[in-house]
Amino acid sequence: MRDLKESWVTSANSSETEFPLNNLPYGVFSNGEVDQRCGVAIGDQILDVAVLERDGVLSFGGTLQTAGWNAFMALGQDAWSTLRGDLERLLAAGSQHEAALTSHLVPIADAILHMPFTVAEFTDFYAGKHHATNIGTMFRGAENALPPNWLHIPIGYNGRASSVVVSGTDIVRPHGQLKGPDDEVPRFGPSARFDIELELGAIVGQPSNGPISVAQAFNNVFGYVLLNDWSARDIQAWEYQPLGPFQAKATATTISPWIVTAAALDPFRTSTPEREKPLLDYLQEPGPMLYDIALTVSLTPKGGAESVIAQTNYAEMYYSAPQQLAHHTTSGCPMRVADLLGSGTISGPERENRGSLLELSWGGKEPIALEDGATRSFIEDGDLLTLRGAAHGDGYRIGFGDCSGRVLPARK
Amino acid sequence: MRDLKESWVTSANSSETEFPLNNLPYGVFSNGEVDQRCGVAIGDQILDVAVLERDGVLSFGGTLQTAGWNAFMALGQDAWSTLRGDLERLLAAGSQHEAALTSHLVPIADAILHMPFTVAEFTDFYAGKHHATNIGTMFRGAENALPPNWLHIPIGYNGRASSVVVSGTDIVRPHGQLKGPDDEVPRFGPSARFDIELELGAIVGQPSNGPISVAQAFNNVFGYVLLNDWSARDIQAWEYQPLGPFQAKATATTISPWIVTAAALDPFRTSTPEREKPLLDYLQEPGPMLYDIALTVSLTPKGGAESVIAQTNYAEMYYSAPQQLAHHTTSGCPMRVADLLGSGTISGPERENRGSLLELSWGGKEPIALEDGATRSFIEDGDLLTLRGAAHGDGYRIGFGDCSGRVLPARK
Repeated sequence: MRDLKESWVTSANSSETEFPLNNLPYGVFSNGEVDQRCGVAIGDQILDVAVLERDGVLSFGGTLQTAGWNAFMALGQDAWSTLRGDLERLLAAGSQHEAALTSHLVPIADAILHMPFTVAEFTDFYAGKHHATNIGTMFRGAENALPPNWLHIPIGYNGRASSVVVSGTDIVRPHGQLKGPDDEVPRFGPSARFDIELELGAIVGQPSNGPISVAQAFNNVFGYVLLNDWSARDIQAWEYQPLGPFQAKATATTISPWIVTAAALDPFRTSTPEREKPLLDYLQEPGPMLYDIALTVSLTPKGGAESVIAQTNYAEMYYSAPQQLAHHTTSGCPMRVADLLGSGTISGPERENRGSLLELSWGGKEPIALEDGATRSFIEDGDLLTLRGAAHGDGYRIGFGDCSGRVLPARK
Repeated sequence: MRDLKESWVTSANSSETEFPLNNLPYGVFSNGEVDQRCGVAIGDQILDVAVLERDGVLSFGGTLQTAGWNAFMALGQDAWSTLRGDLERLLAAGSQHEAALTSHLVPIADAILHMPFTVAEFTDFYAGKHHATNIGTMFRGAENALPPNWLHIPIGYNGRASSVVVSGTDIVRPHGQLKGPDDEVPRFGPSARFDIELELGAIVGQPSNGPISVAQAFNNVFGYVLLNDWSARDIQAWEYQPLGPFQAKATATTISPWIVTAAALDPFRTSTPEREKPLLDYLQEPGPMLYDIALTVSLTPKGGAESVIAQTNYAEMYYSAPQQLAHHTTSGCPMRVADLLGSGTISGPERENRGSLLELSWGGKEPIALEDGATRSFIEDGDLLTLRGAAHGDGYRIGFGDCSGRVLPARK
């Protein structure tokens, strides 16, 4: 299960690539010659599956002709398996299709990558225990760090789908209402505590209309993306009581250009950590539903050197995406194809495992050191923030492509 | 401005109808003969504007051929004015078009009414001061009733667009995690404190991509619907800290079948109440942007008599929809055509003005009496809840149609 599958696309057989034949992630690309269309990454190339469907090599009811994977996802699990099988067969070393397919490969380096799907609705969770404990300790003290419901509910809130953008999109520092603890009245100005949140996003690939089980939720998840939930901590601090974060989270959420399917991640399944309190039946997992995915955050000042500022693993989550999705449906909430569920910030137990600057700099009290001698408490204008993630097999890895965004100065 | 405009559709000239020529609200209908399509209410009839556009009487780029007003809204303010002018001309008393148009009228009584538009995203606000004060007093005591940010920010949170349904849709009582103050651990079961929230919903008719002013926001609002934000108070109490309501609000939100345009409501504009604290510049209103709309809530037990349980007015709101929309864009949040903004629960100063059962029964401590001798603290299975609203001119009124839903027992 964890051995490299060899491809006739030789760059896919390197231990360096994020896109071996074992991965086959789905994206949307264009270049000087073709408009936005569905593509699949293999090594340093993109296979143009839109043209393969047009030519009859693949057959998915025309769903690969659209500039997003929404219509294909809606076809359901059988189609998901069939396409993956077709692609493995077409791209395997020794395939008779090599000659015919070579002309339908486009170098990733020459392509522009777009949103891989149109987000229906976006929900963000708060399901990393180290993160929740860190935040709670900063704001409420160590004794009251975890809210009383935290060990029972995968806490989530609705986000803003219109603000989800693909990696590479510049992020303008937001304005908002700000009021420091010593200020008499609020003022309106640019956020001075602009931050990232390192997350994974689960993509709902099948609709539901009523409560579903965790097992059903697992089957309904099409795949995953890296997700950076940009967060204005100073706006959040003033606005979030009593109804939760709103404008602090609405500037942008950046996702990776490639959707890594649940099928590709299957060899890397792992269990959620031991429960500190028993979960109610509807949240019990029938099997391992997290994944062992190593994650990093790096920060590159404008014109400066890149520093890796955090390293953690998706396996640190207390709740899996299927648990979150099942909880999301308890009230009867209809779920739709292309709903996006953010995991919540993924921090680990040590300082270097923290998935946000708020935690890394402990609310700004302990600025972190960068490679070139600079320090950071929060993001400065011009900083490029990059999330990366990979599941590691024997001699290969499965990744998502960089999930990056550069922060531009606030509007005048 | 406030005089009845006479129509050759005689039922539109009655002081009883909600749909005089002054109104011209937009909906989507079907009947045994026609599929879902755009229609305009006039008296007790619906004018089939899809067929009028097909026949060339109206010309809006085919946008009236779809089963929703989204495409038409996207055309922008000039088109909005043109259609309203066209309809006034076609339907006015003495119009030469009466003979040609009569065959394109469908009795409302024979039609099924559908969602008038496809909701892009749904945001719910908390902008009624009497409501916020009542809730705050119940949960935090009278001294701390209003959160410190309340007089500065139109507080809002993102809701769930997939759960918005049209009037007449049955509502299944939700399950959820529940934990009473004396319970050791939470349990999973049906909500026992299921409630309504009387609101108005503002529909964003034009997109924006960055901060906009209150004046621009006013121009971008296409129209309004009645909105009932069904709320499970017991689920909410346990889940909402620290990130706000989630499953408590995700069962359903019911809207009226008719969109009343901002143009139709224009003669009824009124100012927000006097500010208790000065607002920041970006929230200042250049003119009156609330509306004088009388509102009622009624409850009809299964097989019982209807009781009006609350009466209030949209003019009670502390923040207008344009203020809410402007605030919504401060962080750069992109707004889209067909975003729906709930006003927040509209309560007035007296007990009978309260827009939720939570307030009317004061958290269940003071059950209200119904016409037939029964009492209610929260909704019981089989209850039909109906919101109504009307702006009153001289001898006429402008309404939205009933916004109703019957609550069915929880799933087994």
